[in-house]
Amino acid sequence: MNYILKNENAIYYECGYSCDNAIFLRLGSEAFFITDGRYEIEAKEYAQNTTVLVDRDIIKAANELLKSSKSIQKLIFDPHEWSVADFSKLSAGYNDIFHQDPDFSRKKRIVKTGQEIDKLSQAAKLGANAFDNFISKIDVDLIGLDELTLTYLAKEQLSYSGLYELSFDPIVAINSNAAKPHARPTNDVLKYKDLLLIDAGLKFERYCSDRTRTICINDQMQSSTNQQFNSAKLQRLYDIVRNAHDEAISQLRSGMKAFEVDAIARDIITRSGHGEYFVHSTGHGVGLDIHELPVISSKSDVIIEDGMVFTIEPGIYLPGEFGVRIEDTVVMKDGKAEILGA
Amino acid sequence: MNYILKNENAIYYECGYSCDNAIFLRLGSEAFFITDGRYEIEAKEYAQNTTVLVDRDIIKAANELLKSSKSIQKLIFDPHEWSVADFSKLSAGYNDIFHQDPDFSRKKRIVKTGQEIDKLSQAAKLGANAFDNFISKIDVDLIGLDELTLTYLAKEQLSYSGLYELSFDPIVAINSNAAKPHARPTNDVLKYKDLLLIDAGLKFERYCSDRTRTICINDQMQSSTNQQFNSAKLQRLYDIVRNAHDEAISQLRSGMKAFEVDAIARDIITRSGHGEYFVHSTGHGVGLDIHELPVISSKSDVIIEDGMVFTIEPGIYLPGEFGVRIEDTVVMKDGKAEILGA
Repeated sequence: MNYILKNENAIYYECGYSCDNAIFLRLGSEAFFITDGRYEIEAKEYAQNTTVLVDRDIIKAANELLKSSKSIQKLIFDPHEWSVADFSKLSAGYNDIFHQDPDFSRKKRIVKTGQEIDKLSQAAKLGANAFDNFISKIDVDLIGLDELTLTYLAKEQLSYSGLYELSFDPIVAINSNAAKPHARPTNDVLKYKDLLLIDAGLKFERYCSDRTRTICINDQMQSSTNQQFNSAKLQRLYDIVRNAHDEAISQLRSGMKAFEVDAIARDIITRSGHGEYFVHSTGHGVGLDIHELPVISSKSDVIIEDGMVFTIEPGIYLPGEFGVRIEDTVVMKDGKAEILGA
Repeated sequence: MNYILKNENAIYYECGYSCDNAIFLRLGSEAFFITDGRYEIEAKEYAQNTTVLVDRDIIKAANELLKSSKSIQKLIFDPHEWSVADFSKLSAGYNDIFHQDPDFSRKKRIVKTGQEIDKLSQAAKLGANAFDNFISKIDVDLIGLDELTLTYLAKEQLSYSGLYELSFDPIVAINSNAAKPHARPTNDVLKYKDLLLIDAGLKFERYCSDRTRTICINDQMQSSTNQQFNSAKLQRLYDIVRNAHDEAISQLRSGMKAFEVDAIARDIITRSGHGEYFVHSTGHGVGLDIHELPVISSKSDVIIEDGMVFTIEPGIYLPGEFGVRIEDTVVMKDGKAEILGA
């Protein structure tokens, strides 16, 4: 099989090294790592089982390499990885061999190896631990901090003060701000009895963690999914989301289709009368990318298999009032879902 | 004029808000901000002078909006901003109105407004100050740290412990590792009299700073471009790079072509016999993106104008020995270059 990759994580998966200006080309038994002079020394040291080619213009170099390899009948590429500009340059004069395969690399990566699961598990453990560290910082004395400062604190805790990369910018949202599923921090200040939503993750050896908790700020503050809120309405919403989260994870089985998994969580929320306020999918794969396959949505008919790693993250968002989301990353093992980092 | 944008910074420049799943569409006097439900509340609050459209599938929504706007003759798009997959979906059944204009938004942004220069200047000041803070941490007691720990320290200092985003992952490289222009950190340990290269920047209100210093680790350690090394060979290289950096900045004038600016630095290095070891361009524009227009390379014939902001960063890299780079970000003002943050 012949294929060409441009995405940094897709390339890393193939040869154990990548950088922000590289092309990986697999032609039968040969593999080429094309990069520019800035990365030459590292590519030659780390990119396993590849011939490293160095050129200021890596796309032109790939185009020329293809032209000199006369026997190629078919070359697979992912139309998501290539810009219109780059692809037109890559395929110039040689258009007929290119075959689209959307999510080519992500499909290869959908079932994780044991080594990958170990790294994802380690990421999840470090991430879960950072949640506890973060919450232990928000003691009664720290009430009065605004979301911007809380986000800064969350970054410091999640990155272990810079030791780990983050999977994405953490979301730290108070009360009605949590009704924006991807809120950006405001100057709103945290008060006693407030709802606080935290969605955050870190990377361990390039593999991502992803977790969300919605907690009540009080004297018994902690990061479990067992939370007691002051408002009966909020408590009811919270319990519905928690039930959707718990049921999806406990009923999950290898062999199910992804839309069936989505339906477990979605049906519970819909039957409670809040279906229209669950505005996103139930989950997404996690790996080298924070969003991978499988997609756990009402439209996805992927069959769940052992070794897949993905999030379960139902939520209810009442605009202007509050938002609740509970998220864990699970791995499929022996036919069942196991929460990573638990 | 009609145009469509997908890049996050390009969209932010148009309306003061952006997120990681958005399309901006300008149709004559009307502007549309298309995003999904996660960003609806914020988009409606922050995206200035736009009609916000919410759809799970923003590309399909843009395609349908275009189909319903019968009178469009021409719609400009940047072929770098669109993947082959997204563009094929966007233009389905409506291909004939799309006109490529590579770097459309970056060309609009090449001359900065006063407000942008203020932000870039503030970013540069914070960045320069962080260099001093970082160096003050590497006192004699801290010699013995490895590059990984030094990189972690640099991130902490550059981000002011998480308060600011970084422009990119800092490069902190010792001796021969500095010969890799974009080195990744190793376990090599810092010793007295070593060369240390630091390339780092932060973002202030989304605008980037970018700066490189190559310093000698000794009792008089500081971040100026005046450095005294132990090795005569290294000192000679350093002085050549410093001269190339200083001459390019002092000879720079509005009205010059970018390749003439590149030539000032490159000729000095080439005349010293090290031309083949200066493996990259002399500089690049800096703004919302860390790499913008103008490109200061031997192939760029852009005319330098007042209000442009770009780096001057000559370097010499002797593989296996050491690398030297000195970089400042300058703004063109009253026909001359002024170092930002100086």
